[in-house]
Amino acid sequence: MMKINGDRLWDRLMEIAQIGGTPNGGVCRLTLSEEDKKGRLLFEDWCKGLGCSIRVDAMGNLFATYPGKDPYLPTLLLGSHLDSQPTGGKYDGVMGVLAGLEVIHTLHDQNYVPDRNIVVASWTNEEGARFTPAMIGSGVFSETFSLDYAYQQKDKEGITLHDALNSIGYKGTDSVKPNEFQYALELHIEQGPILEREEKQIGIVTGVQGIRWYDIHISGKECHAGPTPMDYRIDPMQSVPLLLTELYKISEVFGEDARITIGYIDASPAVKNTVPEKASISLDIRHPNEDQLTKMHEFVLSVIQTIDKESKSSIELEEIWHSESVVFDDNCVHAVQQASETLGYPHRRIISGAGHDSVYTSKVIPTSMIFIPCKDGLSHNELESAKKEDVIAGTNVLLHASLQLQHK
Amino acid sequence: MMKINGDRLWDRLMEIAQIGGTPNGGVCRLTLSEEDKKGRLLFEDWCKGLGCSIRVDAMGNLFATYPGKDPYLPTLLLGSHLDSQPTGGKYDGVMGVLAGLEVIHTLHDQNYVPDRNIVVASWTNEEGARFTPAMIGSGVFSETFSLDYAYQQKDKEGITLHDALNSIGYKGTDSVKPNEFQYALELHIEQGPILEREEKQIGIVTGVQGIRWYDIHISGKECHAGPTPMDYRIDPMQSVPLLLTELYKISEVFGEDARITIGYIDASPAVKNTVPEKASISLDIRHPNEDQLTKMHEFVLSVIQTIDKESKSSIELEEIWHSESVVFDDNCVHAVQQASETLGYPHRRIISGAGHDSVYTSKVIPTSMIFIPCKDGLSHNELESAKKEDVIAGTNVLLHASLQLQHK
Repeated sequence: MMKINGDRLWDRLMEIAQIGGTPNGGVCRLTLSEEDKKGRLLFEDWCKGLGCSIRVDAMGNLFATYPGKDPYLPTLLLGSHLDSQPTGGKYDGVMGVLAGLEVIHTLHDQNYVPDRNIVVASWTNEEGARFTPAMIGSGVFSETFSLDYAYQQKDKEGITLHDALNSIGYKGTDSVKPNEFQYALELHIEQGPILEREEKQIGIVTGVQGIRWYDIHISGKECHAGPTPMDYRIDPMQSVPLLLTELYKISEVFGEDARITIGYIDASPAVKNTVPEKASISLDIRHPNEDQLTKMHEFVLSVIQTIDKESKSSIELEEIWHSESVVFDDNCVHAVQQASETLGYPHRRIISGAGHDSVYTSKVIPTSMIFIPCKDGLSHNELESAKKEDVIAGTNVLLHASLQLQHK
Repeated sequence: MMKINGDRLWDRLMEIAQIGGTPNGGVCRLTLSEEDKKGRLLFEDWCKGLGCSIRVDAMGNLFATYPGKDPYLPTLLLGSHLDSQPTGGKYDGVMGVLAGLEVIHTLHDQNYVPDRNIVVASWTNEEGARFTPAMIGSGVFSETFSLDYAYQQKDKEGITLHDALNSIGYKGTDSVKPNEFQYALELHIEQGPILEREEKQIGIVTGVQGIRWYDIHISGKECHAGPTPMDYRIDPMQSVPLLLTELYKISEVFGEDARITIGYIDASPAVKNTVPEKASISLDIRHPNEDQLTKMHEFVLSVIQTIDKESKSSIELEEIWHSESVVFDDNCVHAVQQASETLGYPHRRIISGAGHDSVYTSKVIPTSMIFIPCKDGLSHNELESAKKEDVIAGTNVLLHASLQLQHK
């Protein structure tokens, strides 16, 4: 059975991790930075060594095409992203790109010419750490965002994405459209603890959770902590315990597939001896089933309305973002399942809790993903870690699923 | 009956409010800034016009002495502070200084020579807005803090208090010691809503609440909001509702004199889609009775210990600051009471909820305070406002209490 070259893949992962490598063993390779440019050029060099042609679109998305027998048939799209969080790890994104490269390198070693081209992509600004929103490169590719909208996004220094593309020479002119692709596959670390705890090497990703983001704004009246009697106060913070108690009930009411996260509570002014004028609570809720997510949304609305009526403060719900749940393509999921079984790796079906470029490619190309475990479920962290054997297993599944989809 | 010149006092208040005046009608006269220097020089000019001598001690505390019949008798100390919050108002502090000036100006108008000297002081860095701790000038005067400790305090730009004193030429060399004073009085706005709501013009301040400050640290484990099942999480924010529910019970358990304020909750990292690694809750509790405050402290400890045991996160209480409650001097309180009655102003006894320079002077000199109402109890705010008639009433009480204490 055809197998990838695990040492070569691992060595490349460690080599590219030097670009933007941090003292704590992590990676800082922010999108469209000088480090990102170096990473892109190294990846291009590796691809060109296999006879790939390189295209760059107007968003700086990078496509390396490995030629198949019939260049006119719709092709297979592999890949992920080379950019990282400011204190990111060695695997998030980059592993999926180099795994795609390893798939075509393995075919090249075997003098195996696939029926169709295979394209390995690296998407611009998946992380959203420099420019918002995240996954904007695949978002423009899938026509979720307009190119103009993307170009106008600014980083913290006020540099537009457009200027950042130009500054590293990656505002491309090649046209790459969804309709040239038949299927898309992305290998990624799980970024959660399930596979590791259940000792599964492969996660067959069947879909992505729907996500709703909110800010809950509580308005009261600022006053001095000392001289103001308790019953004179209109204190936004005094609404917090009841609000949180009720909101956290979501996980009882909607079961184990529901997620609720309160990432922070902002008070203003945030001063020890001042009753704040206002507070806002960040809220993130998720469910893989869009109907259930809608019911969770209604639950949140009802909690806010009830407590707003009972409370001295006034409470408002602001909806920030809604990403609908995604169900991945049956053929792709099936190919990953078959490859896992054929290769004999312990596996389970799993829902992605994080967003990925595959969320956007799945809107325009039949898509699915493969997960491998990461240590303690940790990512977006310099301590992010994956086992070499799991990286190899995931890439072998990517190889065999790719071969199978070639013939669909 | 002798009365102050209300128009002169009011005009001076409005004139000095121009120094550091903000577009919204407030004042930004941070301690030891160029604006503070201008304010000090204006005050000195006014004092010199009445024949006062000026002394400046090593902390930049400013003392204007109006000569009495016997310069060797222990004297009366009036005053407050000229510095303001960055977005402060026209009355907090400065009114108490100019009221002291108005008292001696009134005596001067009447050719009334008091038995003893009267000293009007302005203390350095009462606000604590540029250097911590607050009230450090009167704190060094009362030997609560050492001069070296005070000199080493730095502002946000890294400038030491010592260098800031030198930069405006107010590192003085005069020795001014507590033992030259017999009594101290301070007029101030209430900074709370009680007098206004009860339509009292004068608050006879009998003491100052004791204050305890804490940070409650909750440690959990950072993880991604999507992929991490709820029962895998060690989420510090999930301990917040129970903690706050229990802590806020303080006001039921300890009655209407107890105060509890949660000014802010910090999460880290404060990101919408990340379960934070840690959260910390700011806690301020107050009570005018030190025994009750100690019991409140024990209540807080017991809440933390109980919830720490029940919670997946670990919870620790850090004690940040403790300012014991203050009971003001009977003679001074009585003098203020008598003056209020004699003048016929509606009055009530009141506890100060805020810290003041009088907390420190009371450690070394028999001291009390006079409050007047401020609009909506608002201070540390550009909208801080007091009625001219109340400012005049408070200053008349200060005049007559001073005359009475002259003869004790």
